[in-house]
Amino acid sequence: MENIGSVTNISFGENYTKQVETPTNITIKGILGLLMDNIEGDEGKREVISLGIGDPTAHSCFHTTDAAKEAVVESLLLDKFNGYSPTSGLPAARKAIANYLSRDLPYDLSPEDVYVTAGCTQAIEIAVSILAKPNSNILLPRPGFPIYALCAAFRNVEVRYYDLVPEKNWEVNLKAIEDLADQNTVAIVVINPGNPCGNVYSYEHLEKIAETAKRVKTLIIEDEVYGHLAFGENPFISMGLFSSIAPILTLGSLSKRWLIPGWRLGWFVVNDPNCIFKSPKIVERIKKYCDICGGPATFIQAAVPKIIESTKEDFFRNTLKMLKKNSDMCYEKILEIPCINCPYKSQGSMVVMVKFNSALLQDISDDIDFCFKLAKEESVILLPGTAVGLKNWLRITFAVEPSFLEEGLRRLKTFCLRHSNPKTLS
Amino acid sequence: MENIGSVTNISFGENYTKQVETPTNITIKGILGLLMDNIEGDEGKREVISLGIGDPTAHSCFHTTDAAKEAVVESLLLDKFNGYSPTSGLPAARKAIANYLSRDLPYDLSPEDVYVTAGCTQAIEIAVSILAKPNSNILLPRPGFPIYALCAAFRNVEVRYYDLVPEKNWEVNLKAIEDLADQNTVAIVVINPGNPCGNVYSYEHLEKIAETAKRVKTLIIEDEVYGHLAFGENPFISMGLFSSIAPILTLGSLSKRWLIPGWRLGWFVVNDPNCIFKSPKIVERIKKYCDICGGPATFIQAAVPKIIESTKEDFFRNTLKMLKKNSDMCYEKILEIPCINCPYKSQGSMVVMVKFNSALLQDISDDIDFCFKLAKEESVILLPGTAVGLKNWLRITFAVEPSFLEEGLRRLKTFCLRHSNPKTLS
Repeated sequence: MENIGSVTNISFGENYTKQVETPTNITIKGILGLLMDNIEGDEGKREVISLGIGDPTAHSCFHTTDAAKEAVVESLLLDKFNGYSPTSGLPAARKAIANYLSRDLPYDLSPEDVYVTAGCTQAIEIAVSILAKPNSNILLPRPGFPIYALCAAFRNVEVRYYDLVPEKNWEVNLKAIEDLADQNTVAIVVINPGNPCGNVYSYEHLEKIAETAKRVKTLIIEDEVYGHLAFGENPFISMGLFSSIAPILTLGSLSKRWLIPGWRLGWFVVNDPNCIFKSPKIVERIKKYCDICGGPATFIQAAVPKIIESTKEDFFRNTLKMLKKNSDMCYEKILEIPCINCPYKSQGSMVVMVKFNSALLQDISDDIDFCFKLAKEESVILLPGTAVGLKNWLRITFAVEPSFLEEGLRRLKTFCLRHSNPKTLS
Repeated sequence: MENIGSVTNISFGENYTKQVETPTNITIKGILGLLMDNIEGDEGKREVISLGIGDPTAHSCFHTTDAAKEAVVESLLLDKFNGYSPTSGLPAARKAIANYLSRDLPYDLSPEDVYVTAGCTQAIEIAVSILAKPNSNILLPRPGFPIYALCAAFRNVEVRYYDLVPEKNWEVNLKAIEDLADQNTVAIVVINPGNPCGNVYSYEHLEKIAETAKRVKTLIIEDEVYGHLAFGENPFISMGLFSSIAPILTLGSLSKRWLIPGWRLGWFVVNDPNCIFKSPKIVERIKKYCDICGGPATFIQAAVPKIIESTKEDFFRNTLKMLKKNSDMCYEKILEIPCINCPYKSQGSMVVMVKFNSALLQDISDDIDFCFKLAKEESVILLPGTAVGLKNWLRITFAVEPSFLEEGLRRLKTFCLRHSNPKTLS
């Protein structure tokens, strides 16, 4: 270590970033931030209508239940939960989550199968990280939720996309999975209810996915972050129902159903009654991984049993009623806009995908251009489909005040009419 | 993908774990759990005295201030912080932490340099993960905090240990750092105030560490989780003071100083005023990494400004007074035990390291055997030094009720006398 000299003339950072690849993935929050900046630079702006992010808490009609808040205040003031919890989660929270999820299953989950996480984001991180191995690949839906690809990039797991088919209610292209999977495929990610498509899969389709996973000898990461937020024809069915066919890692959280995404209370669950995947070594690996994660606050974990027990069905029914009403309105208003097409009316989650016909528009090069111009001209934020893997599509979040949604869609129509190509407008 | 057949006869998990290495690192919580199990299997047990883990919240004399709890309740009940925060942290929290840390620095940190994390554990994870690159190594103190080595193992970063020297107040062996570092060394980890040694480094020593880092062209990860918990001769000095010599990544949290480890509110701070390490690409990498982490609850983040502002000096002074009293008592009582030696009276954090002389004991093979027998026979839990890298040492946590500590040390003495080798007992 001789002859080193001063380092101040060398940029460590530049030197360092030459040697590592930072994932180039677009993130939803990243692109929405840029769209917001685009509005803020504009003079004389109107109220901003953001239909970009799946966080309904800014709207008073989507407030969480008092029972949940009271449970947290009570557990904080008890002064018993200021200390560390076990890194896998507080036993009472693990048990409550196991019981809650077991309602949808033909067998009872053990609390030991449940790991409490800082939101579903951390559950995704754990799932991808514990599965990562040299030369591994993971099958992700397109369109999908970009955090999976970002996690995979950080863990050096190759991403292979399988398509969701808009004409078939955004069902999984099962043939694509068979074609893409090989002996290095560590998991198939399935998001149900779907983000960004608002799909809710049928019993039969979920069963087929599980059978496909079995055929290609891999497991399923089932993202249920929007679990139970189904308001159309198909009821919500937990993929865990098919965990005797293929092992299922179930990810979820209180975030969406309880309207508290900022509380960061999620779970990673090993749904594998036949112990196809689960083994003492796997359990040890998950536990060790939890040791390096931060995890959610202990007093919030301590409130989980009461949050789950004390929330009335009315609260859930009311949320579903509002989501259905908004989904319907969104679909109808989109029908009135000539250049935008919605192949599937959202039946679940808080979002829907729509496609615009660029041939009918002038001055719009693609979905990103569309969203930047829409933000600048109409102060309306939509998520460009590119952020979720589909160019020239748009994701609309409808979990907002109905009047707010209506105004946003009205401006969207104005924008589309203004940009319509006069040659093609009938 | 033909000819696959049933997977139910194949153990995915066994197959999987053959291909990945799960780190074999001992964790503190892991070994303490085993020690606890050892007690619980015993009949007719006495009250368990755990001096094993650095979580003082079980003891009423180490309760957090009401101001902190009120701040959290207020921010929760405002109903404004149930939604997502930016993944780097809520701007108000970043600003409050920047201001708080700037009090100890000759320049003002920018809120942009602060990333809010789920406790210091997640800050460690972020630091190690953003630095990891192929063939990289990291220098860790021995003894040290095992989560660093566990993180490094998960991120394929080679660990190289440098020694802390008990005879020199657990100072860093600077020569060892120069010998161990090479062009692939991504960081030197320095924990001050120290865990597990209770050391508090002088201005001069910290400056020398920074200069050594500069010489070997690497940066410093400074773990300040016990920041300001110094009650001996040396005042607490933030290593950030020397960030113009070498870039410093400062990790910390509210956990220890505010006695709320379970609230999971920590920070990862880039202390690099000359932008030796910091570059737009590095900042992008950190931000993207934060996108895959869960982060702490938004309403707890929102309370941070008030927690910091409204906590009275009296509260901190009282904690230091109790810690000093307990550290003194611990040192004095250890002096009375013939086979145990404490080379350094803890001046900071909540822990101290003591060494036992195995030649003076019979039936005790090593520190793990010592701790298991102590747990079984006396219902006292100490952490075996092996868990922190030093065989035949013990870590004692003294952040407990004084009467509890006294009883624990009394039983420790009884145990040692009972196991003393009659041939060597004078």
